[in-house]
Amino acid sequence: MRSEERVLGIVETARAKRPRFRDELVTMAHGAGGKASQTLIEGMLLPELGSAALAELGDAGAIEVDGVGMALTTDSFVVRPIRFPGGSIGELAVNGTVNDLAVSGARPLALTVSLVLEEGLPATELRAEVEAIAAAAEAAGVEVVAGDTKVVERGRCEKMYVCTTGAGRLDPRASLSTRAIEPGDRVLVSGPVGAHGTAIMLARDDLGLEAEVASDTRPLWPAVEAMLEEAGPHLRCLRDATRGGVASALNELARASGVAVQVGEGEVPVAPAVAAAAELLGIDPLYIANEGVLVAFVAPEGAAAALAALRSAPGCGEAAEIGAVLDEPPGMVFAETGFGGRRVMDLLAGDPLPRIC
Amino acid sequence: MRSEERVLGIVETARAKRPRFRDELVTMAHGAGGKASQTLIEGMLLPELGSAALAELGDAGAIEVDGVGMALTTDSFVVRPIRFPGGSIGELAVNGTVNDLAVSGARPLALTVSLVLEEGLPATELRAEVEAIAAAAEAAGVEVVAGDTKVVERGRCEKMYVCTTGAGRLDPRASLSTRAIEPGDRVLVSGPVGAHGTAIMLARDDLGLEAEVASDTRPLWPAVEAMLEEAGPHLRCLRDATRGGVASALNELARASGVAVQVGEGEVPVAPAVAAAAELLGIDPLYIANEGVLVAFVAPEGAAAALAALRSAPGCGEAAEIGAVLDEPPGMVFAETGFGGRRVMDLLAGDPLPRIC
Repeated sequence: MRSEERVLGIVETARAKRPRFRDELVTMAHGAGGKASQTLIEGMLLPELGSAALAELGDAGAIEVDGVGMALTTDSFVVRPIRFPGGSIGELAVNGTVNDLAVSGARPLALTVSLVLEEGLPATELRAEVEAIAAAAEAAGVEVVAGDTKVVERGRCEKMYVCTTGAGRLDPRASLSTRAIEPGDRVLVSGPVGAHGTAIMLARDDLGLEAEVASDTRPLWPAVEAMLEEAGPHLRCLRDATRGGVASALNELARASGVAVQVGEGEVPVAPAVAAAAELLGIDPLYIANEGVLVAFVAPEGAAAALAALRSAPGCGEAAEIGAVLDEPPGMVFAETGFGGRRVMDLLAGDPLPRIC
Repeated sequence: MRSEERVLGIVETARAKRPRFRDELVTMAHGAGGKASQTLIEGMLLPELGSAALAELGDAGAIEVDGVGMALTTDSFVVRPIRFPGGSIGELAVNGTVNDLAVSGARPLALTVSLVLEEGLPATELRAEVEAIAAAAEAAGVEVVAGDTKVVERGRCEKMYVCTTGAGRLDPRASLSTRAIEPGDRVLVSGPVGAHGTAIMLARDDLGLEAEVASDTRPLWPAVEAMLEEAGPHLRCLRDATRGGVASALNELARASGVAVQVGEGEVPVAPAVAAAAELLGIDPLYIANEGVLVAFVAPEGAAAALAALRSAPGCGEAAEIGAVLDEPPGMVFAETGFGGRRVMDLLAGDPLPRIC
């Protein structure tokens, strides 16, 4: 156990390190989920909007209505192209939002969908995405209860942007927080990493690579519910490893809890086609976006049960324990390489993969 | 009272008239709140996504969580320019969303904010909008509990698009429905119409007109709460008269309830500068968007109390009774002109004012 002073010291260090937003212009990097995004969020949005729910920096905000605990989350999707192997923007928008609820320990209940459409969009493409939204909502067990549609002039968006917001009921078995992670906790991932971002890159014309990689987009509530049932009290924190991949998720949580995270590079499941594409592109698969992979921090005594529960969930058969939590240096994530070495896995400064979600 | 068969007959007529979406391309008109929008919503989105909450065609969808009645609503804001006399996109996004909750009889509680930013946006402009969001949320008494930021390449949006989603608690004093309007009900508006759309038009460089018109953007929950307190059981339906203005709101509700609405043209409050600009532009102020004006349908015995309550609310001192509900022809709205004549006020087919919200 860390002493109270120790905890306060860490919190103060983290506070002192809150980044300031000093950039003069918004750049693509501010939307990429790395350091620039963090600076925008923590250096401008949080101080201005600062509610307790936002300051938690979770995937969803918690609210209480007449004693009922709920979670709300929102995401805009601007993925290019809108259709790719394994999914499309409509399916992604539903799964991305229900997953943010799921990793917050909330059963997804209802969605709202707001569309910004480009003038000239073929009606068939719109209909296909509306169908994809309906199918994904049904698969995830949520109802679309409100919507909005705007149209902007040709060129002022790219086919469509989709904003989905989800409401969920906080599950009483969960007590998750970005600040709850303790030294000794184990780190699990729910499946092979990097498929979504790789599929998007390959789907873009400009790369000239060909490989059979499909997005991993899927709803994660079944995986979360299985873990809650088998290891509920031992779960510290869950996160959907989307933009910036598993490495960025680990960095955000290491920082929020004031702990270090050590990952065994060889323990991380990566599909061979993803590994090959990532090597050609010179990108570490741990930094590539996923849309159906979560990271779980679990107390050591619950790790085996949580891993077994994860593996029983649809699409999570290859879940693995990939690392553990250390007490210092606070906020740092490092990988143990296969040769007994260590390397720091920091947040990326730049933007290797714009608009993957 | 209409007989049960009569009600069923009307519902069936309305159903039979559900428009089909036959257009090949999305056009600006599909986002304008008139006939083309209705065709898109009722001809494609509802049949595909069709939940009971959506089919109500209200400003917000109702959900029940552990016995607690809540409302959810979402809107994307793509207004051009982002700053205009009387407001800006950030303030509009908050007020627009809390107002959709308010007119659904729900006290606004929490908001989510999702930003799509254009690469190259000056940070000062972003900060100004984040501040506007924070100030408007505080004024409306809601907390921003979750957010998201995406960045798209230069030109792929125009400075910023803002999607706000609101959650509210349904007020037990309210029992509002788009289908509850009865012949004999009175129609109230909460203030002078057409200011927002006129302010936006004048703010655009391309018109060459000059007049002192400021947007009416404001939160409407205080007005709704005052009416609930003084005339709660008599309120049938409320609607925020945004895109398409008061005329479109009346059309949507006349159709949903299977009734006719008669408006006394001379009863509708219009500020002189708005009336003058509208005349120059050749647009009826009843079709111009508002961002702080609601339409209320009230049983005759509650109309005076509701009007007095409205007039006591901030910004609603010029609230007025503008018309009444007739039993037929179902779905029709008409204006009584000053000369004893009548003209039909149909939904507009086209798009006189793109991107006003």
